[in-house]
Amino acid sequence: MRIDVLTLFPEMFEGVFGASILGKAKAKGIVSLEAVNFRDYANNKHNTVDDYPYGGGGGMVLKPDPVFAAVEDLQNEADSKPRVILMCPQGETFTQQKAEELSKEKHLVLICGHYEGYDERIREHLVTDELSIGDYVLTGGEIPAMTVIDSVVRLLPGVLGNETSAITDSYSTGLLEHPHYTRPPEFRGWSVPDILVSGHHANIEAWRREQSLLRTLERRPDLLQTAELTAKEKKWLASLPKQSKTEQQ
Amino acid sequence: MRIDVLTLFPEMFEGVFGASILGKAKAKGIVSLEAVNFRDYANNKHNTVDDYPYGGGGGMVLKPDPVFAAVEDLQNEADSKPRVILMCPQGETFTQQKAEELSKEKHLVLICGHYEGYDERIREHLVTDELSIGDYVLTGGEIPAMTVIDSVVRLLPGVLGNETSAITDSYSTGLLEHPHYTRPPEFRGWSVPDILVSGHHANIEAWRREQSLLRTLERRPDLLQTAELTAKEKKWLASLPKQSKTEQQ
Repeated sequence: MRIDVLTLFPEMFEGVFGASILGKAKAKGIVSLEAVNFRDYANNKHNTVDDYPYGGGGGMVLKPDPVFAAVEDLQNEADSKPRVILMCPQGETFTQQKAEELSKEKHLVLICGHYEGYDERIREHLVTDELSIGDYVLTGGEIPAMTVIDSVVRLLPGVLGNETSAITDSYSTGLLEHPHYTRPPEFRGWSVPDILVSGHHANIEAWRREQSLLRTLERRPDLLQTAELTAKEKKWLASLPKQSKTEQQ
Repeated sequence: MRIDVLTLFPEMFEGVFGASILGKAKAKGIVSLEAVNFRDYANNKHNTVDDYPYGGGGGMVLKPDPVFAAVEDLQNEADSKPRVILMCPQGETFTQQKAEELSKEKHLVLICGHYEGYDERIREHLVTDELSIGDYVLTGGEIPAMTVIDSVVRLLPGVLGNETSAITDSYSTGLLEHPHYTRPPEFRGWSVPDILVSGHHANIEAWRREQSLLRTLERRPDLLQTAELTAKEKKWLASLPKQSKTEQQ
């Protein structure tokens, strides 16, 4: 897969593209990751990429020309039809389902604004997707682009080793994870639950599933609507008195 | 404000902490940003920070000792009672309201796991908050920590200059932004809407408000529940035939 990010701050990506899973996926040749400064595509002598908004008001607006030129250059270079993704607060909220969809593409181009708004013609005539990572205000699209890239690249075949896939699998249940414990067995007077050192694997699995259900009920009851639950589990969850949920957890 | 991030990948933060708004806020002395490797607090000869889970299963679990030791060291150094925030998928979903709440603190410590789960005693006895930035799977807490830091720091007094505050203000309406246009007036045959070059400021404001309402209705109708709308606007939105929403936009 090839991923290009258009940004005015390519240096923001250096640490993230070089470390951990993304660094390894690059080194293995599974993905190419480039941060491209679209200021290089400004066709004026001051390298201007933004200008005042028509109709007045504060704030600057990214001009269409440099963004179109940069995307088309990358498209020609790759000889591809990339998904062109605008990172913006008006976008569709990013989800794991979208990450899975994007992980099947050959080429992604992510466009990051920074302070500025985008000229509407970019949105209407150039991009295929608009994504937001959540309902909070950020300075630019750079950190959202890193978020999308990390979630997509870790889904590519050969990227995750055994050490990570096990943890990942627990997400596929659609529930929040059960509690984890490791050594020391007692830390400052707080002990590991007896059941986890009992050696009864079936009991341990049952306890973990119960904890996972309780935690989801407590913190994210919305996830229970889509999680795969047995009829017995549904009945059990419905039977819990509202008051005791926190105590049991 | 002081913000410390506990991570096994401090190099991931270099580009982000040095650039743009965060870099400027640091340079102005408004915020101190440090990425601390909690492996330095491992009290064993192999600098181990994770171990196998009690009760079996795949994946590794972060041990409590190094994380407690690192947080307490930072707390003593700053002589503060920091908010200690665990970045994790089980956490409360991060919102702008939470960013505003955190921006009033003196000291934040963000803990980033990476592949591993957290020993439950960290969650129960050390942290004050657990945050998730959205419903997607990431490799670690580092990019989520950057997200929280960016959204919080830009709210600190003196961080944003005039060039950015105007764009920001539009979020306070609780609606998605109206379209923006800048030069050239015609680009590849696509023109700026006539109204924006009409010079009629009252008409322009009315058009922008209408576009903002239509875009929110189309893309994020949930936001209309909490946005500040006039009675006339509510009536107008309710009167729109469902079919024509997209066309009008």
